[in-house]
Amino acid sequence: MQINKLTIIGTGLIGGSLALALKQQAACKLICGYDTDHDSLRQAQELGVIDEHSTDLAEAVQGAEVVVLAVPVIATVALLQKLAGLISAQTIVTDVASAKAAVVAAAREHLRQHLPNFVPAHPIAGREQGGVQAGSADLFADHALIITPLQETAATAKDRISAMWQQTGARVVELPVQQHDEILAATSHLPHVLAYALVDCLAAMQDQREIFAYSAGGLADFSRIASSSPQMWCDVCLANREPLLRVLAAFDEHLQELKQAINESDAERLLQVFSRAKQARDKHTS
Amino acid sequence: MQINKLTIIGTGLIGGSLALALKQQAACKLICGYDTDHDSLRQAQELGVIDEHSTDLAEAVQGAEVVVLAVPVIATVALLQKLAGLISAQTIVTDVASAKAAVVAAAREHLRQHLPNFVPAHPIAGREQGGVQAGSADLFADHALIITPLQETAATAKDRISAMWQQTGARVVELPVQQHDEILAATSHLPHVLAYALVDCLAAMQDQREIFAYSAGGLADFSRIASSSPQMWCDVCLANREPLLRVLAAFDEHLQELKQAINESDAERLLQVFSRAKQARDKHTS
Repeated sequence: MQINKLTIIGTGLIGGSLALALKQQAACKLICGYDTDHDSLRQAQELGVIDEHSTDLAEAVQGAEVVVLAVPVIATVALLQKLAGLISAQTIVTDVASAKAAVVAAAREHLRQHLPNFVPAHPIAGREQGGVQAGSADLFADHALIITPLQETAATAKDRISAMWQQTGARVVELPVQQHDEILAATSHLPHVLAYALVDCLAAMQDQREIFAYSAGGLADFSRIASSSPQMWCDVCLANREPLLRVLAAFDEHLQELKQAINESDAERLLQVFSRAKQARDKHTS
Repeated sequence: MQINKLTIIGTGLIGGSLALALKQQAACKLICGYDTDHDSLRQAQELGVIDEHSTDLAEAVQGAEVVVLAVPVIATVALLQKLAGLISAQTIVTDVASAKAAVVAAAREHLRQHLPNFVPAHPIAGREQGGVQAGSADLFADHALIITPLQETAATAKDRISAMWQQTGARVVELPVQQHDEILAATSHLPHVLAYALVDCLAAMQDQREIFAYSAGGLADFSRIASSSPQMWCDVCLANREPLLRVLAAFDEHLQELKQAINESDAERLLQVFSRAKQARDKHTS
């Protein structure tokens, strides 16, 4: 069941990779791109990631069967307001933001008549380099795609978006909005804050050149996510502020416990926590 | 200039990889292994990583030109005491521990007559899987090998150990003991503590199965080092306790600043810190 016209708003890493994956599956008759960054838009067109583009939002979404908002969370919220007067009642709108409560609140405010055709979604995939040139058709393969449907979301709309993402190789799952936001605060937003804090701490130290020169793979891996877009992560942290603050507080307790054990040279306690963590890590990740 | 007899005490990941790298370069006439873990020792012999082995420490080091202590830091300290009566005055002793002040203090106590031939060293390489079967000849290639010589260390001994490590492809550099310990606390010991604290925090959350299931590459990379040996890292944290506590306190300040910015929805400050961190990360790591 092809999508007649898919409009992707935001032709960056996520939007570009989605277009590439759907093209590979011939899942759409036409993919139209829109981006306020005209360079990014032109690049997507030149790379053949999109079939056509428009620098006019109304034109871009006109006649679209599905509109995907593939922009940072604060831009998503702003776009929902702009879209209200531009889309037809049949158009299914979905997004990719990693903080759902903020997006859902904006949809409730601005797309009230359109809620049956609004499907909040979030692909759990990404890389620290942004931009359409970093995109790839297999970015979502074997990754989770979380849909957080509203009570109002129509089954037909949800199924359409599920089917679209399944074509990219993603595993589609459903979660309540709040649970999504709490889980992502813990598994994604918190690690990013820690990585930024660590690198900022190291960079502030006197021997910063030596510090990075004498580091091994552990630090490189650990700090990789601190190369992600500062603006995007600033948006995410503020959009998902409350769950993130709660998990930061929980992390703090665990860190203080370790600090105390080190301070007291309490080998038994330190070994217990390290062993528990290793066990959990080995059990749950590959 | 071949080493006539090299004895490697501890035939795990580091000792085994060193043996493999030196064999590839035909850098030793004979490599003898010793390990209190007899399975590990037998495995090293069976894999051809070492030429011969002994389960008797005195026998293992007899006639050795170079003895490498490739065991965790607390075992290194204990071994220095045992070695004192077993090695000849000509034998050069070196180690691989990632906390040098503790090792140097033990050497000063137990090897006082032997200090000219004691060369504290630390290869900045490793992986989260331990054991000789995880070893490889290229583990040290293009990685730093830090020597922290004592005032008493003889130039001939230092040059011999430098030359040995250069044969593995490592870049040999020299640092004062204290600077080494401070840098490693920041770049290696702190990230490990944070990774253990994060995974322990996530594992304690209610939806732990979901939490790990819905995580992307960021968490996997970030938490990889939490799969490292709990005993080894417990030892390191306590052996390098004071520098580690100082850098934990510095990290805490940076984390609290971010927490406060998130709490106050201070986008400007958050963006400033994230941008500064990204810039440092992109500048210093590849």
